[in-house]
Amino acid sequence: MIIALDADGGDYASREIVIGAAEAADEYGVDIVLVGKKAILDMLVRRHAKKQKVSIIDASQTIECSESPVHAVRSKPNSAIVIGTKLVKDGSASAFVSAGSTGAVLAAAFFFLGRIEGVERPALCSIIQINPEGPVLLIDVGANVDCRPNHLVQFGKLGTTFAQKFLYTESPKVGLLNNGEEEIKGNTLAKESYKALQNSNLNFIGNVEGQDILKRKADIVVTDGFTGNIVLKALEGFGDVFLNVLGLGRAFKVDEQLQGSALVRYVELTSMVKRTDYKEYGGACLLGVNGNIIVAHGRSQARAIKNAIHLAYHSVETKVVDAIKNSSYTAK
Amino acid sequence: MIIALDADGGDYASREIVIGAAEAADEYGVDIVLVGKKAILDMLVRRHAKKQKVSIIDASQTIECSESPVHAVRSKPNSAIVIGTKLVKDGSASAFVSAGSTGAVLAAAFFFLGRIEGVERPALCSIIQINPEGPVLLIDVGANVDCRPNHLVQFGKLGTTFAQKFLYTESPKVGLLNNGEEEIKGNTLAKESYKALQNSNLNFIGNVEGQDILKRKADIVVTDGFTGNIVLKALEGFGDVFLNVLGLGRAFKVDEQLQGSALVRYVELTSMVKRTDYKEYGGACLLGVNGNIIVAHGRSQARAIKNAIHLAYHSVETKVVDAIKNSSYTAK
Repeated sequence: MIIALDADGGDYASREIVIGAAEAADEYGVDIVLVGKKAILDMLVRRHAKKQKVSIIDASQTIECSESPVHAVRSKPNSAIVIGTKLVKDGSASAFVSAGSTGAVLAAAFFFLGRIEGVERPALCSIIQINPEGPVLLIDVGANVDCRPNHLVQFGKLGTTFAQKFLYTESPKVGLLNNGEEEIKGNTLAKESYKALQNSNLNFIGNVEGQDILKRKADIVVTDGFTGNIVLKALEGFGDVFLNVLGLGRAFKVDEQLQGSALVRYVELTSMVKRTDYKEYGGACLLGVNGNIIVAHGRSQARAIKNAIHLAYHSVETKVVDAIKNSSYTAK
Repeated sequence: MIIALDADGGDYASREIVIGAAEAADEYGVDIVLVGKKAILDMLVRRHAKKQKVSIIDASQTIECSESPVHAVRSKPNSAIVIGTKLVKDGSASAFVSAGSTGAVLAAAFFFLGRIEGVERPALCSIIQINPEGPVLLIDVGANVDCRPNHLVQFGKLGTTFAQKFLYTESPKVGLLNNGEEEIKGNTLAKESYKALQNSNLNFIGNVEGQDILKRKADIVVTDGFTGNIVLKALEGFGDVFLNVLGLGRAFKVDEQLQGSALVRYVELTSMVKRTDYKEYGGACLLGVNGNIIVAHGRSQARAIKNAIHLAYHSVETKVVDAIKNSSYTAK
């Protein structure tokens, strides 16, 4: 399997991305195509990925996060985001992973891969793995900031297919993120979405509140991309504060004087905090376009890049895109 | 100071509420009027609050969370929520604290106390105390699920006055909760609110993202009540999952075998998790009505009730309502 990787995007490009690529190549047996500035990538690969199956495609242009995504994608055909997406389009690569401008990645995916028939709004699906009992899908986490009720129903369908294939959950429970569990709760969008979800053929269990996400009341939590993005990042911030304030960041190690049940508790507590960290969870899958696209966190370091590549690898293996194509998005 | 307390609202009424009232009476030297079912309260007070300055007012009707708030408040004049709010209205009590139906508490406050002149939308302000470096105000956390940009500007003004009086922060920084830090980010409401906040006389620092709440990038984070409620509860859920999974809930104690720096870290980590717990932080202040109203969490137990009473006590002491009255809400 060949995976294209944006080596020019995110806060830690290109060094951390090359290191993450090398680790992923080793661990998952995938071939990685690094798309970025060839001159620097040649040196970094010699240093960090000498023994791995890693090749380089030059991308002379860079898309900045401050640029208008649509304009940037149109005017920069030699950017890593455009080149990487086109590698998926022409079948050279099975997936594209980028920690660059999310807006530009979405725009490139829409332009070059296109939406799967019937899907009105492709959406970003995040796999939240904080609860040790299992993951929860949150969809949308930022592709669509203004939504209509039928978009949320489609997010539920996309999430259901993804959960069935990627997580092997046969009949995933879908919950609507809301400010109360009663049916009458919510803003205008949530109230109307409740009715639309009730009339869908999804396994809809009703409203779920903020605290229910981590409690795994539902397997899939649907919401608009504005709310989803804020909630996801708020949970991230929680881990950040813990790690920074307590100095448990990169230098974390278990104190030797800890023993017995206290040691177990301490390690469990810390590992749970660390799971909130964007460095751990890898990225979000863009669902509803004709190809496997993974949006990694802008602050991704090597470990997050490696995990984002794993997301891509497992999405390809479990044929998520084909499954979405085979679902009907024209009926309810 | 006399504080009226809804002894008939919330998941743990009336026992935990009486215990919390007794603790608060001891700790803050306030007099508590319990409003609820007199027959049971007589017994509970004899058992748990014999020595404290606690009196009882009978409320024969109960407002359920599933009822329409406006209809319930109109049709149940003998409910604790209506009686307690009226005690504030007529000056008998300095504040009213309730863990009952949030909607009904808001409706009663609007009907009987009324909005402060110029305030279009009173809002719920939560004091998030997870970061050990200090608190952050999140406003609105549930009073207004659908908002317009000028409402968010008013939330910023209400929060600013509250921070100045209650937290002694002279020129609090106001941030707009958004899905990115760039000015162009956001849904329609956030984009328009950004401009309105820029044109206000607030100390507006721009957009803040989910992770910035706990990092205290701003002193006050403004958002619509739908998003604010979900984010607040998501952070709560974080603490819940930690406490439940690790069995650190009520039975938490420091293991004797922990020593030195490991002990310090363990205690800090656990206390930070515990600060996310609704049992600890007490409640939210309703800002913009003519009186001190505290909405406690529906799942409040004794400790949360005690802390909610402290919120009421400190709001009265620092004259928050008068300060809001003296701010101009007709100009920018």
